[in-house]
Amino acid sequence: MKVTTPIKVRYQETDQMGVVYHANYLIWFEIGRTAFIEKLGFQYHEMEKDGIVSPVINANIQFQQPVRYGEEAFVQTWLESYNGIRTTYGYKILNHKKEVAVSGETQHVIVKKDNFKPLSLKKKLPNWHQAYMNALGEES
Amino acid sequence: MKVTTPIKVRYQETDQMGVVYHANYLIWFEIGRTAFIEKLGFQYHEMEKDGIVSPVINANIQFQQPVRYGEEAFVQTWLESYNGIRTTYGYKILNHKKEVAVSGETQHVIVKKDNFKPLSLKKKLPNWHQAYMNALGEES
Amino acid sequence: MKVTTPIKVRYQETDQMGVVYHANYLIWFEIGRTAFIEKLGFQYHEMEKDGIVSPVINANIQFQQPVRYGEEAFVQTWLESYNGIRTTYGYKILNHKKEVAVSGETQHVIVKKDNFKPLSLKKKLPNWHQAYMNALGEES
Amino acid sequence: MKVTTPIKVRYQETDQMGVVYHANYLIWFEIGRTAFIEKLGFQYHEMEKDGIVSPVINANIQFQQPVRYGEEAFVQTWLESYNGIRTTYGYKILNHKKEVAVSGETQHVIVKKDNFKPLSLKKKLPNWHQAYMNALGEES
Repeated sequence: MKVTTPIKVRYQETDQMGVVYHANYLIWFEIGRTAFIEKLGFQYHEMEKDGIVSPVINANIQFQQPVRYGEEAFVQTWLESYNGIRTTYGYKILNHKKEVAVSGETQHVIVKKDNFKPLSLKKKLPNWHQAYMNALGEES
Repeated sequence: MKVTTPIKVRYQETDQMGVVYHANYLIWFEIGRTAFIEKLGFQYHEMEKDGIVSPVINANIQFQQPVRYGEEAFVQTWLESYNGIRTTYGYKILNHKKEVAVSGETQHVIVKKDNFKPLSLKKKLPNWHQAYMNALGEES
Repeated sequence: MKVTTPIKVRYQETDQMGVVYHANYLIWFEIGRTAFIEKLGFQYHEMEKDGIVSPVINANIQFQQPVRYGEEAFVQTWLESYNGIRTTYGYKILNHKKEVAVSGETQHVIVKKDNFKPLSLKKKLPNWHQAYMNALGEES
Repeated sequence: MKVTTPIKVRYQETDQMGVVYHANYLIWFEIGRTAFIEKLGFQYHEMEKDGIVSPVINANIQFQQPVRYGEEAFVQTWLESYNGIRTTYGYKILNHKKEVAVSGETQHVIVKKDNFKPLSLKKKLPNWHQAYMNALGEES
């Protein structure tokens, strides 16, 4: 399963190089990830109501081409890997010519909001676990 | 009492106009306000530990001149008015020539973090109340 | 003419108060303004290709209610006033209950990108001028 | 050569998890990189005056511990590698206990601002080249 989300570049996201400032692509990854999770049938904010948050523990990003204000962009998101504890999402950002402008991955765990103690996604959120397993199955 | 805080422009704060993006001045106001409160002898995060937050209820900003990356800037902050409930801060942002680049005001209340119900600063935080009254006295 | 644009709150836009950070509403105003201009038949980035930019010279914002992650939001934008030089937009941000969460105005001029010298919108961009005049006419 | 820069967490940088939003660490890396370049005796904005910009082409970040508002933080920056074309900076963000909270790397090239065509740093900016070579020499 690959989810594609259109992004409209905000003027605020540009910098004086005349292109989107690089850190903003991590925010676009977040938008793609949110859309992917919704496609699985879940809402991230529902997880937080149970006192659980899902921090990023690792990110890598390759910036191939700049994206500019006034041009269309799209973020594609998929599940790269999942082991019951760690979830890795893959992303590609396409420009208006459908060329890959940016690609990357982020890795996530879930923790208690109170103290950031790690939790097992498999045990704590069995429905999410099953959906991730199914999504992985489709890939292979 | 007027507190002056130096600001080093971040590249991320610029936009493709080649100047600091206007919404960022509200963030610089926040930096000035934090410094002002520390000068009074308080820490904003200490307030939050008691389940109290202090949202902005009103802001106005005049943008006179652009500020650019690589140039020095300063935010001056003072207490404009205070009535036991509402606190109004005044701000001037000076550029590297000490000219006023931006000026503005923000108005704040305190509320319970849980439900955003308004609280009386005078009753809930008597030490802050006294410090604000003293700061006002110095102005007049 | 009033243009309504849906906004999906980004996790990045929240702060530790658990609500959207106040400066982000200026960015949402920008999104509404862009949509309004497109409705008039123009593209802001086309203006910039001619070496003209349109900085904000004044903004005021009333924050009535917090907007939260996971809830729908909408920005309504209209032309408040226009005199051939200065353009003032009005905004209302509605929450998921269609209550006014935030309202405000921003005032804009156009300037040469090179040196920020003011230009007359009426003379420099007669098509935009006409469209603004028409939009104003509809209001009254 | 390792340059250490203090960072004061901005309220705006937090999210509703109650910690610094992860994309902001890329901005802190930028702050560290700017300080490192200044220590070498250069100013990034001087480079831009010659129509040259220096985009990030690759970034990776490991998030070990959250950083919170009200706590001190520091970014350490050094030159990880340099080959006349590509410059790789290394970073560690330390929390108030001087523990590593975040670590990472960013890789940069220089390009013409007009068309993003790649340039040789060695040929185009020989003074910078020499300074990078010296900085590398100190490391080994």
